[in-house]
Amino acid sequence: MSDRIAHAGLRGKVMSADEAAQFINHGDSIGISGFTGAAYPKALPTALANRGKELHAAGKEFKVNIYTGASTAPDCDGVMAEADIINYRMPYQGDPSLRKSINAGNAKYQDIHLSQSPQYIEQGFLPIDAAIVEATRITEEGHIIPSSGIGNNVEYLDNADKIIIEVNSWQSLDLEGMADIYRIQRLPNRTPIPINAPGDRIGTPYIDINLDKVVAVVETNAPDRNAPFKPIDETSQQIAGHFLDFLDGEVAAGRLAYDQYIMQSGVGNVPNAVMAGLLDSKFENIKAYTEVIQDGMLDLIDAGKMTVASSTSFSLSPEAAEKMNNEAARYRKHIILRPQQISNHPEVVRRVGLIATNGMIEADIYGNVNSTHINGSRVMNGIGGSGDFTRNAFISSFISPSLAKDGAISAVVPFVSHIDHTEHDAMVIITERGVADLRGLAPRDRVAKMISIAHPDYQPLLEEYYERALKKAPALATPHDLRTAFDFHINMIEKGSMKG
Amino acid sequence: MSDRIAHAGLRGKVMSADEAAQFINHGDSIGISGFTGAAYPKALPTALANRGKELHAAGKEFKVNIYTGASTAPDCDGVMAEADIINYRMPYQGDPSLRKSINAGNAKYQDIHLSQSPQYIEQGFLPIDAAIVEATRITEEGHIIPSSGIGNNVEYLDNADKIIIEVNSWQSLDLEGMADIYRIQRLPNRTPIPINAPGDRIGTPYIDINLDKVVAVVETNAPDRNAPFKPIDETSQQIAGHFLDFLDGEVAAGRLAYDQYIMQSGVGNVPNAVMAGLLDSKFENIKAYTEVIQDGMLDLIDAGKMTVASSTSFSLSPEAAEKMNNEAARYRKHIILRPQQISNHPEVVRRVGLIATNGMIEADIYGNVNSTHINGSRVMNGIGGSGDFTRNAFISSFISPSLAKDGAISAVVPFVSHIDHTEHDAMVIITERGVADLRGLAPRDRVAKMISIAHPDYQPLLEEYYERALKKAPALATPHDLRTAFDFHINMIEKGSMKG
Repeated sequence: MSDRIAHAGLRGKVMSADEAAQFINHGDSIGISGFTGAAYPKALPTALANRGKELHAAGKEFKVNIYTGASTAPDCDGVMAEADIINYRMPYQGDPSLRKSINAGNAKYQDIHLSQSPQYIEQGFLPIDAAIVEATRITEEGHIIPSSGIGNNVEYLDNADKIIIEVNSWQSLDLEGMADIYRIQRLPNRTPIPINAPGDRIGTPYIDINLDKVVAVVETNAPDRNAPFKPIDETSQQIAGHFLDFLDGEVAAGRLAYDQYIMQSGVGNVPNAVMAGLLDSKFENIKAYTEVIQDGMLDLIDAGKMTVASSTSFSLSPEAAEKMNNEAARYRKHIILRPQQISNHPEVVRRVGLIATNGMIEADIYGNVNSTHINGSRVMNGIGGSGDFTRNAFISSFISPSLAKDGAISAVVPFVSHIDHTEHDAMVIITERGVADLRGLAPRDRVAKMISIAHPDYQPLLEEYYERALKKAPALATPHDLRTAFDFHINMIEKGSMKG
Repeated sequence: MSDRIAHAGLRGKVMSADEAAQFINHGDSIGISGFTGAAYPKALPTALANRGKELHAAGKEFKVNIYTGASTAPDCDGVMAEADIINYRMPYQGDPSLRKSINAGNAKYQDIHLSQSPQYIEQGFLPIDAAIVEATRITEEGHIIPSSGIGNNVEYLDNADKIIIEVNSWQSLDLEGMADIYRIQRLPNRTPIPINAPGDRIGTPYIDINLDKVVAVVETNAPDRNAPFKPIDETSQQIAGHFLDFLDGEVAAGRLAYDQYIMQSGVGNVPNAVMAGLLDSKFENIKAYTEVIQDGMLDLIDAGKMTVASSTSFSLSPEAAEKMNNEAARYRKHIILRPQQISNHPEVVRRVGLIATNGMIEADIYGNVNSTHINGSRVMNGIGGSGDFTRNAFISSFISPSLAKDGAISAVVPFVSHIDHTEHDAMVIITERGVADLRGLAPRDRVAKMISIAHPDYQPLLEEYYERALKKAPALATPHDLRTAFDFHINMIEKGSMKG
């Protein structure tokens, strides 16, 4: 047995994943660890899927509600979706099999702001029966040392009746010390969260739990998902260039200083290119107050450009994950992992004054942003933390190539088919064509800016739409021609291209 | 001269409004006081309108950008819109003449979350030249004692080059002591706002200003707008009844206590009915953390039901305004007026745990809410503080009659024609037909709830739409048929009724 379980009582609860899965019953609501492919339980999801398949084969029901931090992995969401044991899922997902089930009308998925999801548990809006949480180790006191992510672990452990702990010996013991566990008081006794800057530590490096609730401890040795990054392409580099020029412009305007950039960044190729660009920029003492630590942030730390990265989880390539596992003792001087209620909390986000940068599916000519749905109906992943950060940022920005699917899809459309960030929230939108700075602009004055960052293939269609809207709209505050507002999307659905 | 100007130097700056208006030039950006018809400058807007008319008649340009707290009055926004001197306007308006100008494609209007509008000034996104602010009196030190509202006065006074003060002797001297003026530090030096409960006072009862910037003091004696409330109608009473039943249900579920209701409430007939209902309810020690003090809150204070009301302004009937002017010394024990950056701040809103209740224009079958635009193009007022409160509330709710315009308009539609509050934000939607509690529900499970609160005249049309969407949608996460998603609105535009 692993020496990672230092508490004698909990050592007595060690069992196989299949045995532990017997504690979970049909209809249960289960809060699990896991955030962007890190720190999810590696054994129980497969055990639960197998339990489900057996029961289904015997003609019995077995479906559960799964709450996580955010997305997990094929051996977590994937196996459970394929075994058809997920009834309801919140607050974020990104797994191909689960997505397929949701869009087929099977699994139910509620897409909730990541900072708010733990409130759904604490405030009693969603019941919870069990928590399944991955740990790096269990201390002599029975405290959990979290692995590569915190997510909603605290709230799930605090509120579940049963606790199952997976102790994963793949995770580096040197992760200990990165976590900063702080509980926001319950209503009506809340007080300020005492974080003034991304590097402030306010809690403990462990999660204290009610040991009486632990029904099982399962030992694993398995890597996080850790998907490889694609090499940075030309379009991403162009977008990153525009973003860095925009930052320089903010410095020139006296609104930012080269040693005061606080970064929030979504995951992906363009953010990666931005971080690569920052390596050669004038920016120093960069801090991140974000939800995920990515490869590019480790590079910025290595180069001495980034001093602090606060997040709730990692999302690394296999190479970077190996580096982290070998050098966590060095990185933990710069990295803080917080519960996602804190990493994404509107209070702290607004206080520190970060620049939010997130991807999008599409934006419309007035600056409304769709982050979640293709053609209004098909959900991709979810809003994640983008709403937490965008609404409360010093400056909010969205980045995207102007085209997708070999030119069949335009990122700028007349009317977005789903709105996740309203015209009141999106300040700056950037494609490889340039920057649309919407700050201080009334709706009609935004149109030319948005069309300027669309791909030339779509600019005439967008101009035609706006001309028609000016003629046909019943009023000119925000001119729309509702008869043709979704023509781009209808063309895509019916003809395979937004061009029609 | 009024003894309300106790500072000798500022007494020397007293002049007529027409003289003061000469300090404002074409192209200036002016931050003025005024929030929901209270505390707006009574003389300068007309003087500026006259100056504009004279200059226009002489073939010269005169247009200005007007920033306020929120809506003002016919003798403020109205006269300036009619004289066509408004180029750009933010962050909220509600005046018929100004609305007409905006929807005619003339005045430009940016609709900004009220808590964020002062950041646009402080962060340098919008320049500001002059501040025109109403005061109850000026102290010996030259401090401003605010009148019936605070709004963005502090940020406008701090950042403008020129200050014009209107001292309005109609305002009660006993308002002194209601204001609680607190400045949030500029980035990167922000710290927590030390408010844990609605009644916490953290600042001064006056606004200290840079006296060198004062170019004029103008004396006025004129009432606030103070529109009369309509008598409570049956539909409003039904909606209020459902809302109060919902509150009782939250108590029964253990999520609320009868002495812990913290109210945020929009203005209007239904909120008025809710407050009347609370007079006879089991709720005690009600507190408000909201943006406007309304008649019903004074009644609750008088009855001993409400102990504290925190807001940034008043919105009273003429009768209630007279009562306030006579009895402000009594009311100020219970009422705090804060800068709108504080009254609406996400940090404090989330911390205190309020129940947000706002009106809406329409909501769709998935719970997206339109607060601002008729048929997607015609702006009514603006998002105001509804986003600040809804996004950060303990429970967010929207209330509306199910019908408008004698049945030509349904408040529940297939796809809202403008989105101000997304499906991620709206928890509970209430009409006279009942309560749609959307918490913990995936999109498809929300549809039946939303159709249940639609008017029976529209229920079959909504059911037909959803059936069609289930058949035609390219995916079933959030089924939509984009070809017919706006049929309700197109019918309204072309045939005068959403029924077609």
